Amino acid sequence: MRICVLHGPNLNLLGRREPDLYGTETLDEIDRRLRARGEELEVDLVSFQSNHEGDLVDHIQAEASRTDGWLVNAAGLTHSSVALRDALVASGRPFVEVHLTNIFAREPFRRRSLLSDAAIGVVTGFGRRSYLFGLDGLVVALRRDE
Amino acid sequence: MRICVLHGPNLNLLGRREPDLYGTETLDEIDRRLRARGEELEVDLVSFQSNHEGDLVDHIQAEASRTDGWLVNAAGLTHSSVALRDALVASGRPFVEVHLTNIFAREPFRRRSLLSDAAIGVVTGFGRRSYLFGLDGLVVALRRDE
Amino acid sequence: MRICVLHGPNLNLLGRREPDLYGTETLDEIDRRLRARGEELEVDLVSFQSNHEGDLVDHIQAEASRTDGWLVNAAGLTHSSVALRDALVASGRPFVEVHLTNIFAREPFRRRSLLSDAAIGVVTGFGRRSYLFGLDGLVVALRRDE
Amino acid sequence: MRICVLHGPNLNLLGRREPDLYGTETLDEIDRRLRARGEELEVDLVSFQSNHEGDLVDHIQAEASRTDGWLVNAAGLTHSSVALRDALVASGRPFVEVHLTNIFAREPFRRRSLLSDAAIGVVTGFGRRSYLFGLDGLVVALRRDE
Amino acid sequence: MRICVLHGPNLNLLGRREPDLYGTETLDEIDRRLRARGEELEVDLVSFQSNHEGDLVDHIQAEASRTDGWLVNAAGLTHSSVALRDALVASGRPFVEVHLTNIFAREPFRRRSLLSDAAIGVVTGFGRRSYLFGLDGLVVALRRDE
Amino acid sequence: MRICVLHGPNLNLLGRREPDLYGTETLDEIDRRLRARGEELEVDLVSFQSNHEGDLVDHIQAEASRTDGWLVNAAGLTHSSVALRDALVASGRPFVEVHLTNIFAREPFRRRSLLSDAAIGVVTGFGRRSYLFGLDGLVVALRRDE
Amino acid sequence: MRICVLHGPNLNLLGRREPDLYGTETLDEIDRRLRARGEELEVDLVSFQSNHEGDLVDHIQAEASRTDGWLVNAAGLTHSSVALRDALVASGRPFVEVHLTNIFAREPFRRRSLLSDAAIGVVTGFGRRSYLFGLDGLVVALRRDE
Amino acid sequence: MRICVLHGPNLNLLGRREPDLYGTETLDEIDRRLRARGEELEVDLVSFQSNHEGDLVDHIQAEASRTDGWLVNAAGLTHSSVALRDALVASGRPFVEVHLTNIFAREPFRRRSLLSDAAIGVVTGFGRRSYLFGLDGLVVALRRDE
Amino acid sequence: MRICVLHGPNLNLLGRREPDLYGTETLDEIDRRLRARGEELEVDLVSFQSNHEGDLVDHIQAEASRTDGWLVNAAGLTHSSVALRDALVASGRPFVEVHLTNIFAREPFRRRSLLSDAAIGVVTGFGRRSYLFGLDGLVVALRRDE
Amino acid sequence: MRICVLHGPNLNLLGRREPDLYGTETLDEIDRRLRARGEELEVDLVSFQSNHEGDLVDHIQAEASRTDGWLVNAAGLTHSSVALRDALVASGRPFVEVHLTNIFAREPFRRRSLLSDAAIGVVTGFGRRSYLFGLDGLVVALRRDE
Amino acid sequence: MRICVLHGPNLNLLGRREPDLYGTETLDEIDRRLRARGEELEVDLVSFQSNHEGDLVDHIQAEASRTDGWLVNAAGLTHSSVALRDALVASGRPFVEVHLTNIFAREPFRRRSLLSDAAIGVVTGFGRRSYLFGLDGLVVALRRDE
Amino acid sequence: MRICVLHGPNLNLLGRREPDLYGTETLDEIDRRLRARGEELEVDLVSFQSNHEGDLVDHIQAEASRTDGWLVNAAGLTHSSVALRDALVASGRPFVEVHLTNIFAREPFRRRSLLSDAAIGVVTGFGRRSYLFGLDGLVVALRRDE
Repeated sequence: MRICVLHGPNLNLLGRREPDLYGTETLDEIDRRLRARGEELEVDLVSFQSNHEGDLVDHIQAEASRTDGWLVNAAGLTHSSVALRDALVASGRPFVEVHLTNIFAREPFRRRSLLSDAAIGVVTGFGRRSYLFGLDGLVVALRRDE
Repeated sequence: MRICVLHGPNLNLLGRREPDLYGTETLDEIDRRLRARGEELEVDLVSFQSNHEGDLVDHIQAEASRTDGWLVNAAGLTHSSVALRDALVASGRPFVEVHLTNIFAREPFRRRSLLSDAAIGVVTGFGRRSYLFGLDGLVVALRRDE
Repeated sequence: MRICVLHGPNLNLLGRREPDLYGTETLDEIDRRLRARGEELEVDLVSFQSNHEGDLVDHIQAEASRTDGWLVNAAGLTHSSVALRDALVASGRPFVEVHLTNIFAREPFRRRSLLSDAAIGVVTGFGRRSYLFGLDGLVVALRRDE
Repeated sequence: MRICVLHGPNLNLLGRREPDLYGTETLDEIDRRLRARGEELEVDLVSFQSNHEGDLVDHIQAEASRTDGWLVNAAGLTHSSVALRDALVASGRPFVEVHLTNIFAREPFRRRSLLSDAAIGVVTGFGRRSYLFGLDGLVVALRRDE
Repeated sequence: MRICVLHGPNLNLLGRREPDLYGTETLDEIDRRLRARGEELEVDLVSFQSNHEGDLVDHIQAEASRTDGWLVNAAGLTHSSVALRDALVASGRPFVEVHLTNIFAREPFRRRSLLSDAAIGVVTGFGRRSYLFGLDGLVVALRRDE
Repeated sequence: MRICVLHGPNLNLLGRREPDLYGTETLDEIDRRLRARGEELEVDLVSFQSNHEGDLVDHIQAEASRTDGWLVNAAGLTHSSVALRDALVASGRPFVEVHLTNIFAREPFRRRSLLSDAAIGVVTGFGRRSYLFGLDGLVVALRRDE
Repeated sequence: MRICVLHGPNLNLLGRREPDLYGTETLDEIDRRLRARGEELEVDLVSFQSNHEGDLVDHIQAEASRTDGWLVNAAGLTHSSVALRDALVASGRPFVEVHLTNIFAREPFRRRSLLSDAAIGVVTGFGRRSYLFGLDGLVVALRRDE
Repeated sequence: MRICVLHGPNLNLLGRREPDLYGTETLDEIDRRLRARGEELEVDLVSFQSNHEGDLVDHIQAEASRTDGWLVNAAGLTHSSVALRDALVASGRPFVEVHLTNIFAREPFRRRSLLSDAAIGVVTGFGRRSYLFGLDGLVVALRRDE
Repeated sequence: MRICVLHGPNLNLLGRREPDLYGTETLDEIDRRLRARGEELEVDLVSFQSNHEGDLVDHIQAEASRTDGWLVNAAGLTHSSVALRDALVASGRPFVEVHLTNIFAREPFRRRSLLSDAAIGVVTGFGRRSYLFGLDGLVVALRRDE
Repeated sequence: MRICVLHGPNLNLLGRREPDLYGTETLDEIDRRLRARGEELEVDLVSFQSNHEGDLVDHIQAEASRTDGWLVNAAGLTHSSVALRDALVASGRPFVEVHLTNIFAREPFRRRSLLSDAAIGVVTGFGRRSYLFGLDGLVVALRRDE
Repeated sequence: MRICVLHGPNLNLLGRREPDLYGTETLDEIDRRLRARGEELEVDLVSFQSNHEGDLVDHIQAEASRTDGWLVNAAGLTHSSVALRDALVASGRPFVEVHLTNIFAREPFRRRSLLSDAAIGVVTGFGRRSYLFGLDGLVVALRRDE
Repeated sequence: MRICVLHGPNLNLLGRREPDLYGTETLDEIDRRLRARGEELEVDLVSFQSNHEGDLVDHIQAEASRTDGWLVNAAGLTHSSVALRDALVASGRPFVEVHLTNIFAREPFRRRSLLSDAAIGVVTGFGRRSYLFGLDGLVVALRRDE
């Protein structure tokens, strides 16, 4: 089983960007933890970050045939990108939506997600653990469908 | 550390109610799993289910002084009960909001939660694992604050 | 065939509460008429009134396995209780929604029903006869499904 | 006592149009049942169907002086015709609004009725029985006012 | 100069329909007054009433080439008929919108007119005099354009 | 009978301000025409213009006891002044609302009038003749009530 | 294969009505072109224009059994007629919605179509060619279903 | 004269719950002050607190016949309970709505009260004094009606 | 301690204006009662009424340095004047908002106050006693801050 | 004459992505058909697909000077990209908007197009034929303007 | 060239009112800086401040004939005064809208400006420099039009 | 001090794109003017234009550590890009938002900016001078904070 982690715009800044809000851990560290957890779950894990909506869409298309599910933190694109949603749905693979912060406790425009009604589930507010919970949930859902 | 799990209306039906939507596991089984996970995390775990908003509020008030955090699946009350939100906030203890199903993929009235902007985080869509992820996230958040 | 009649908050006041609006007949008299009509239709009829959302949910859960359908006047809860809707849907039994008054000719907040899109049908505005029509409609629908 | 039944656009297709949704009974059969019930209730019953808003308005005007009440299924005009509402109100006679299907469980534009706040009551979702319940309710209301 | 007066649905009932609201004068009497005023203004005046949107549209089309302006009380069609608006605009002749009652002091759905932004002007609330003022205003506007 | 004409902000500019939109006649000329028409109708007519909401309110209060009705073009205050509405209603005298231009064909914020549902009637779009029609309508309404 | 073209209100004016907006070709010419194209496609084509919603509904009902698909320009009725939509859906035959002008570039009330979500497809803005494209699209869709 | 004070959910926590927001005085102390003020005003005062909407409705029904007016702080139920509103209105006794905090300066969902348009008056923002002012206002209103 | 009472437009009419709605007491009598109550509370009380938003703003500016708090009934300006709100906030002194009538039971446009979220508290519906309660509440709040 | 076809995100997946919804033909095949049709129409046709909003904007800028018109299926960007709209409008060349599916019968967020009011016309719902009809319509419009 | 600076309500308090928000400079100092900048630009500059909407309107009317452009900080009137907008537009002279603070980062009601769509441009958030930038922008725009 | 100017999509077309709307000056000329002004202000100025949201985000991240402030004309991305807003806020450096045209006088979708509430200030409508004013305002704000 192979899972692709997608990190949206500005997540490459993690550890440096507003640490009070987003924590001090870098994206590399999060990816390392995800891979470690992936090993325990016996799934391959590859990560991809981009600030470009188009690169994320390209990547989803390129990886779809060998990916079993997506773990997605679309960051700011969550609220504006129909193209990203379409790419995920077009892949025919399920996905889980995660957010580091609790988007429901922030600006009103962060309350609308263009992804969540197409996702298996959503995890928000637990910092890097949002990814870990999302990964576990995705793997369970994928195994249930086997 | 002591955590109180709150189950809202109709969750006592789990395993019998619409199994395609909610799964075949009963609430007791979920509580047993939560307690087992609690033991691993070295936290005490007590559960309470009620179909009565008032009983949930009473229970929160009664337990607040010896509770460190709340794990809350308010079910239908999520969308209508200001009293429940007020009780949780008044307890002075943090809480995590969980849902078995992905509420963003259901009826429009399930999209509005009166709890989520006051929660640490939200987990939706992973069946009983929503509770387990929520528990882990709550414990980490509580330990970070110690 | 067994049908359970559910009366929501303040309906126990019938005959005394605002008789110009709600009529002079008591809830007991309405229940008696419903039972009489039930006998003609050869269905058992039991009634339950409560001012407590939670009691109504408890009752639905307790009665669901031996009930074939629900005749529901949720009164004020019609417009606010997702828990009641969830209990009715979770019961796996069809229900009919009735109102004594024409809720469309009253305050704007009475125009939104959280029940009606999940109901077989809705009857409003005929006083106690709303119940009788609803009962007849429910029985026909149940017999058609047999 | 004389009651006029008004059937709006496309109801002449009953029995042929989308039978899964609207049933297999024709409008003639429904009218026959209504007349039979009218005889039991000792009221004269005349029916009128038209696909033309203007014909319905003309008919209401022509019949108003010898009609005691209206039984109205305005079909698609329910949601768009102020003229029909005005004609009914101008007649000085009370009316009951009925629908074969449960309009609250269909497209959003069917949720707004331009008639219901001016009606005695509304019956939806019981197929042809919506008419019969509506007739009974109308007759009772008319007799109460005598 | 020739002006065509258009009366929408139910206006043929004037004098009989809700006299407290609409006055005791009949449509014929109003038309007679309009013709009298037309003679003073040296304009020909023809009136047309219909309960049928389509007849009004037909009439506008048939009369357009020999009509200099329209005096329109579209009644209930004011709030729903794009076809009537289109016919008036397509005629290439200016029109004035009039209403017997003050539509701004009635039900909310009467506040939206599909005609008014395409009209020269609007007169509401003066009973039959709304027509007379509208006629005067229309004639002045037409003469200014000569 | 005595009628007070109220002209709101910027109407003193008439004849100079945007003549394409508002015409070339000055406010004095309009007032002269109104007084002339008043003489024909045997009513006294006094006019008052102010750019100050407060002066208009003061004036209404000062004149109320010897005024039988108000002819009001509140101009920009139409859309924002509750105080002006309150003063007119508090006077216990009926009023007619007039506008030179057709406010329904202009900016969206001009569509909402805080006066119109409390007025006898409204006249828009006929330039200075809006005042004359409004005056006639007001006088008729006042005489009907005598 | 037989296709019925439906032209809504005011389309009989084509060639004369606002030629800058709608072009100089008459409806007859458009129908002739459509029949010519129909011959190429080996489908029978009949056209019907009416300014009456009811006539259009009558016509759809009368033609449904021998019609394979509808090509519909409902003109002003597009935005207000639930009855027309119901008739088309009740016919059990697919339809294509066309408009001469680009309705998205006109008044806001033209943006809402009561037909489009039930149509196969929509063509707007190409003048008479909207009909031709719609015809081609309809025929292809019908042949695909054979 | 007898007045019943109703305290909604979580008000039993007063003095302990968020003292910065709600003050340090307990509900008992507030009730004692109310009774003292009641003695001065020569009215009997009884208080009832519950976290249960249903208990509040039961209580209102039980007390209605010997109560002259209600002093109500419905807390979180203010914004969600139609049943409570119905019970108060059904009692036939007037009520005053009070809030400790200024609900207009808090979360948006606290801005909508389901009670206020049926109340005599509303007092918000004065801590325990909101109750005392509300009591005085209620007694005056009741005495004026004697 | 010195408190300034601000009365908005049309309140100078009290006792004469719509006495059924606003009572028979004049503004002078209310001011006298307020001064009497002020003496009991040992605060100086000065009152100012104006129909002019600008005069109220001027007055607030002129009095701010020697005023400890404002008791404000802004009447119609409550719903439209940002300038008044700004003046009160700019004064750096707290204020209480009062209304004679229950604004929540009147026209919809009276439901929005531009002042209330910046006020200490709000009192509505108790006639002149709204002022007295507001004064007491303001004095207590001011003394608590000393 | 030279026309540029623009394909938005995920359209490169055609033939593989959700074939039930989008058909089995690939984008290359569609482009081939478009070129073939272009030859018949004697226009040059070049196609460009990108998942990147920025690449589409770059491409429009680069091609504008030698392009006579655009045939645009912006896919998911239709609903979110002001930059794409601006690029098309800035090119000074007309464009036609096409969609494979009927966007009016899908999720609500697909109902808003940021392009359509600036387009010549719109074609939706005919699969690859949407492009062909759009091409024909664009060429006719361009030739009319020559 | 002569430019008139208009300062709305409460701006006379500058330097004293909420200095954290509005700065410590007085309005006189701002006016002095504006005049100094005016000298550099060779334009005459006159300033006018008022807390009265009506005085601002009067002033605009009085100055219009000898003013080439307006520099307007309407303060609280920005969001409520149609009269002020009308006066500016009626003057036939262009205007620039400025604000000391960034109104988009404050209360929601400050987001709506009744002036901005009629202005040349808008400057917000730079304290007194908003005026200076606005002045420069206005002068350039005026000179471009010469 | 170093300031980075960010130009969004299509701004590279300046001087060629719709010159009536955007002026005849090219982006290079604007950048040259900005650098010249930068020299006067003793700040380094670097400019970056892209049609790619992602490139702008990349650039902001790359430049953040050596940039003191941002001067941003996000063009079409202003209304849709949360990612751009997040990048600016994440940089920890203040920014000013500028627009060549007055966005408040254009299409409704240009009225919503996702940037403005996070900006120091906004300048719209002065063509290239919007940039110059914005630069001056940014430099002053940065120097105030030193």
